[in-house]
Order: sequence, then structure tokens, then C-alpha cells
Amino acid sequence: MKGMILVMDGLGGRPLKELNNQTTLQAAKTPNMDKMAERGITGIMDSIAPGIIPGSDTAHLSLLGYDPYEVYTGRGPFEASGVGVDVIPGDIAFRCNFSTSDEDGIITDRRAGRIREGTKDIVDVLNTMVIEGYEDIEIIFKESTGHRAVLVLRGEGLSGEVSDADPKVEGNKPKEVKGLDGSPEADKTADILNKLVVKSYEMVKDHPVNLKRIEEGLPPANIIIPRGAGEVPEVEPINEKYEVNSACIAETGLIMGIGRFAGMDIIEMEDVTGGVDTNLYNIRDTIVDQVNNSEHDFFLVNIDGADEAGHDGNAKDKLEFIEKVDEIVMSELLKLEDIYIFLTADHSTPISVKNHSGDPVPIIINGPEVRVDDVKEYNEYAVAKGGMCRIRGADVMNILTDLMGYAHKFGA
Amino acid sequence: MKGMILVMDGLGGRPLKELNNQTTLQAAKTPNMDKMAERGITGIMDSIAPGIIPGSDTAHLSLLGYDPYEVYTGRGPFEASGVGVDVIPGDIAFRCNFSTSDEDGIITDRRAGRIREGTKDIVDVLNTMVIEGYEDIEIIFKESTGHRAVLVLRGEGLSGEVSDADPKVEGNKPKEVKGLDGSPEADKTADILNKLVVKSYEMVKDHPVNLKRIEEGLPPANIIIPRGAGEVPEVEPINEKYEVNSACIAETGLIMGIGRFAGMDIIEMEDVTGGVDTNLYNIRDTIVDQVNNSEHDFFLVNIDGADEAGHDGNAKDKLEFIEKVDEIVMSELLKLEDIYIFLTADHSTPISVKNHSGDPVPIIINGPEVRVDDVKEYNEYAVAKGGMCRIRGADVMNILTDLMGYAHKFGA
Repeated sequence: MKGMILVMDGLGGRPLKELNNQTTLQAAKTPNMDKMAERGITGIMDSIAPGIIPGSDTAHLSLLGYDPYEVYTGRGPFEASGVGVDVIPGDIAFRCNFSTSDEDGIITDRRAGRIREGTKDIVDVLNTMVIEGYEDIEIIFKESTGHRAVLVLRGEGLSGEVSDADPKVEGNKPKEVKGLDGSPEADKTADILNKLVVKSYEMVKDHPVNLKRIEEGLPPANIIIPRGAGEVPEVEPINEKYEVNSACIAETGLIMGIGRFAGMDIIEMEDVTGGVDTNLYNIRDTIVDQVNNSEHDFFLVNIDGADEAGHDGNAKDKLEFIEKVDEIVMSELLKLEDIYIFLTADHSTPISVKNHSGDPVPIIINGPEVRVDDVKEYNEYAVAKGGMCRIRGADVMNILTDLMGYAHKFGA
Repeated sequence: MKGMILVMDGLGGRPLKELNNQTTLQAAKTPNMDKMAERGITGIMDSIAPGIIPGSDTAHLSLLGYDPYEVYTGRGPFEASGVGVDVIPGDIAFRCNFSTSDEDGIITDRRAGRIREGTKDIVDVLNTMVIEGYEDIEIIFKESTGHRAVLVLRGEGLSGEVSDADPKVEGNKPKEVKGLDGSPEADKTADILNKLVVKSYEMVKDHPVNLKRIEEGLPPANIIIPRGAGEVPEVEPINEKYEVNSACIAETGLIMGIGRFAGMDIIEMEDVTGGVDTNLYNIRDTIVDQVNNSEHDFFLVNIDGADEAGHDGNAKDKLEFIEKVDEIVMSELLKLEDIYIFLTADHSTPISVKNHSGDPVPIIINGPEVRVDDVKEYNEYAVAKGGMCRIRGADVMNILTDLMGYAHKFGA
């Protein structure tokens, strides 16, 4: 039997006055997910623990059986992994912005006019960077979407315990990076970063991409501002831990980063945006093709749009996106055979909160041998009466691999 | 949004034959608490873990987000804090009885005739005590209600790992206090205590209060018998841990002690007894005034009477007290706005057990954005079908601060 964790990012919600005190999921017409509820066992789940507000990253780590309190070392390592840098344990990784600096070192635009093109060429130059006095430290830049990039420092005697260079508000100079724990490793890393920020400006202020932008009246991407430092942790690959052959089907760098971190194969998709405008047909076809035609037997799938609409506080978008996923994706997943599907969210993103919340999320397991309960609808309220009662994200891989027949008895 | 944990001490019960197999809570008429159930999300809760029988102190520690297995070091420290001794981490604190000793050192009355008056004057003398050879150890006595007192030892090289002096049964000499872990600190503390017991007799056997009692034919309070040793632990104040401005509204020293331990402001009330005869109007008015007119945004409230009636095995008293709380207190709490109220017990105190039990307790959360379930009654049975399913005491602060909007996301 194969297995799948199907995450609708940010799906959970809270009752909304404008929807007659229903959540968006409750108000949405979802005949296919209701069918999954009817065929399956349901419940509610705290991705981390009751009331704890998960990030998408920490929630997915938990769903994959890793303790986020142990392995989550900041966003940098997961973002770096997500954009395809082969980070290794001990690397220090950062999220970066391409920003615009004036000649006096003042940041005039933190996102360099939301630059869309040319960052790869700028990164090619930045990747030749060597910091004087630290010639043994390898410096790896990689562009991400838009004005975003990642930075990885590789070498001896580094630490992730450093502050951000991001001044947060335009009109200020980059913040001086400082070591946070008084260790020589942190102080050394901070010193490297401060020199790196200055040097990035020197190296790319006259880059052809930037000269062209200035000519066109656009803010140049002439300085790199790192934040979110974290040391890349070492973990047991999921394929070894659970004896699976796993694949990650996701739209965003952050989730692909979690997949890479866990050693999963990353399945690339075209035309997916992570928003409500994503190409759900491509996502559906990728899932169906992977389940039916690949050697993989375990899948992590993430569909991101509901979370985006929740962050925007847009009930209509969230509701319609849920209905679209139901119609386009779930209708086909209902036809899959020889697979256990664990349908869930990673966290709630209520319209009223415009951010993640600690409310539990609704879950279903479909598959031949689950103890089907009498819940016939998929929403936060109905499934709270389901046969699984209330579980935690950390339980999911154990439950799923047990059903799949991959797990081992503990004891005799 | 403000938040409140409202604890009805010992509220939970077990089915009683005399009540047609209902619990006292189930049999009681509680229209206001039923209204809270109807408006809210319900469930059951294990204050510590399923089947673990909580003390009121360990349960409240857990409800406030402290792990009782880490921070609970015996009743002494919490009782001392509760009666207003400013204990500091490292202090060794004890509960004491004023007892009656005869000239041969035999304890003839463990509670000194349940002495009610004059103990403060006796304590004034005891507080001048210095033990020879241990002149650097500060000795602090403080009278509590009736025959009760607390003792705090402050200084270097002490330990809470010592046995009780309490002989438990009259007609015996005080037990010799012994170090329990073989450490020199424990042996030293035991030696101090043994000398302190003897010295207390010498210092107060002829105290005017005692001479008067003897004249009146009452047992004198002429010796101090310590028990329940514990080292005062260091914890992060609740205001820092959860970024709240907190107040504790409680009747008993034990719960006020927990509040002080957590760094909460203690709101004093007049005419409250901790029993079924307490002044519920004062409690209600204090709560309403604090919520509406104070700067506090988080409240721990404890109403104690149901627990007392449970310990007495008095079903009628417990039932009637629950009804009185519903009528006098809950009716007004229903009118409060802009607040999340978490209604719970700290533990069950079944009539049949006459003590605490490990049965889970019924819970409700009221507030604007909870996922209201279809439970319409507040009792142990109805809420077990509620939308929160089964949670633990350790989850409460996380759930409440998430709803209040005070919590932070873990991850991205």
C-alpha cells in the first residue's frame, strides 16, 4: 500500500460573521472532500500541540515525524534547501533580500523595486565573493523568486546565533550584525556578514543589470541584506526512518526545502504559483502520475492557495479556492487505489486573523482498512466528532506507515 | 482581548447512586453554565495527564503553563508564598503545625486545640530564633490560619530533601528529621530542624498566650512541628512567559501562593472562606471590577467551596454550592465582553472518594471566535462530546493566548 499526506496549506479557520458564523471550509461546497469524510475516519489535529501557532515549516516537519523543537533552526536553512542549494549539516544559511542602497549606505528600497529579472546574473558575480581574512569560508548565493535570495556560509567555526542585517524600515542603513551568544563563532560569523553586506554593494552596484535598471528609472538591486540565520541540522532521512521511497509535490520553496531536508525526491511542476491562481490541473496530474506511474510509495503534497487567501483576509478567495481544489483535485484522488490518503491542513489561517492560528485542523484518512466513522462532512466542526478524536502532527507518519504495513512492532 | 481561567475547585465528580447515577454537577440546576456551554466550545481536560490525581497546587501550576514535575518541590514553598512570605529561589520552606507538647516531649495535641488566636504573638517570639552553630541561617516563621504556620530557612548549604517531624499520631514524640539523599546539605538541614523543634518548645512554652490557654484549660501552642519540606524553585514569571499583565483572584493561601510564585498580582478579597459559606457576591464583584476597571488582561480565578464539600463527602452541599455559584457568579460573567473565559475545574473531588481523583474535568471556552459546538449543557458527560475533545492542563495557556491574540508563530 502507498501513502500520502495531502496538505491544504492554511485550510483551517474560525467562524466568520459574514458567513453566518461558518468557517470558509464549512461554507464551501466540497462534495468530494465530504465523500472522503464519509468513506474515511476523521478527527482534529494539532500540528505541534494544542494552541501552538505553527509555521508552515514547523508544521510540515512535525507531520513528517521530526520534532520541530529539535530540528527547526530558523527559516534560512529550509529556504536555502528549497531553492536548491545542497546544504549540508553545519552550513549557516540565511534568507536575503536584494535591496537598493544609495551612495551613503542608506537602504532606499528593501525589495529593490520588487525586481523580477536579472537576479541570476547578479548572483553569478556575487558567487565569486571572498572576504579578506576569511578566505577559507565558502560563500554561496542563490536567487529565489523576485527580490528574494538565499546565502549559505560553509566552513569551520561558524554559528547561526547572529542577528539580522535587515533594517526593517527604509531610510536606515543595514543593521550591524551581532553575535547573540557571546561565542567566538557567533562573533566571527557576524563579522563576516557585516563585511559581506558592504562587499555586495561594491561588487554589484555597477552590474549591467543595475545600470540598465537605473537607466530605466528602476531601483537597482545593488546590495544584499541577510536575515533569518540558522545552522543546518543533521537528521535521519525520511526514507530510512520510515523505510519508504518518498516524493515531495509542492509549489513553494519553503515546502520543497522541508522535502529536501527530509531527503525526499522533489517533483517539479510547471505553472504553479502557490497562490489561488495556481494551475490545479498540473498539480492534480502530477499527483495522479506519481501515484500510478512512479516508484515512489510515499508522498507529501502541499497545495498553498488557501493559506495565501487567509493571509490576505479574503474569505471569498479562500472559499472559492477550496471549492476549486475539491472539484479539480479531490475528484480525481477519490479514484486512486491501493493508497492511504491523509487529508489535512498544516495549520489554520483564519480570515479574521490574517495569519496562522493555533486552532486545530480537520483531518481524514481514506484507505481500505480504516475504521470508518459516521462523519459525512469535511469541516472543522463535523470531524471533531470523528473516530480519531484529537491527535498531533507527530503521530501522522506512525499512523500512516502502520496502515501501509511499513511499521514495525515495538516489543514482542 | 482579555483572558480568564475560571477554576471551580474540585468541581468534577463521579456518578452517585443517591443522585440516580448522576454527578453533583449533572444533578445541579446550572442554567448559566449551560448557557456558557451553548455559546462556547467544550471538552474534557486532564489537568496533568489522564488518571493522574492532581493536587490543587500541581493542577494550577499546570494550568498556568508550568510543568509540575519540574517546578513542584513540595507544598511548603507554595504555602509559604501563599501566606505572604517573600520566598526566594533556594529558600527551604515547610508547612508547620502549632502543636501541644507535654514536659516529656510527647505530642498530646497535634493542632494545639485548633488554636484560633494569638499565634501571631507566638510567631513574633519564634522569629528571634537563632540555632547555635548555624548563626548564618535565617529562620522565618509566619502564622497561617488556625493552628497552621509556615517556616522558611534561608542561607547557604541547605536542602529540601528532609523528612517530616510530624509524628502523625498523638501520643508520640516528634519524629527525628533525617536527610533523605545522604547529601551533607540534607543532613545539615535535618540537624537544624531537630534543634529548631526542641528550641521552639523552650522559647514559647511560657509565652503569655500559652499561659493564658493553660489557665483556661486549653492545650497550649507550645511547639512547632514542620513537614512538607521543599526548595523554592526559580521560574519565568507568567507575565514574561505569555506577555500578559496578570492577576490572581483566589480565596486560599495555597492558590494565592501559586499566583505569587508565577509573579501574578494578588487581589485581596474580604469575607471569603474557601468553603461553601464563602461570600460569592464579593468574589463576583471582584472579578467584574477587575475585568472592567483594572489594567490586568489575564486572570486566574479560583472558587474553592465545591472541593471542600467533596472532601466532606457531602453531596447536598456540593450540589447547592454549584447552584449558588451558577446563580450569583456565572450570571454576571455571561455579561462580560471582550474576554475569553476558560471555565474548568482543577480536578475532580468525587463525593464517594472524599478526596481528589484522576477523572478528567469538564471545560468550556467562551469568547467571540471559538468554534462553537452543539453541546448545550455543562457537565462531565455532555462536554465529552464537545469540539475540543480531550486536552491537558498544559495546553490551556497556549490555547487561551492564541485566541487572545497574544501568542507568536513558531516558524514561518
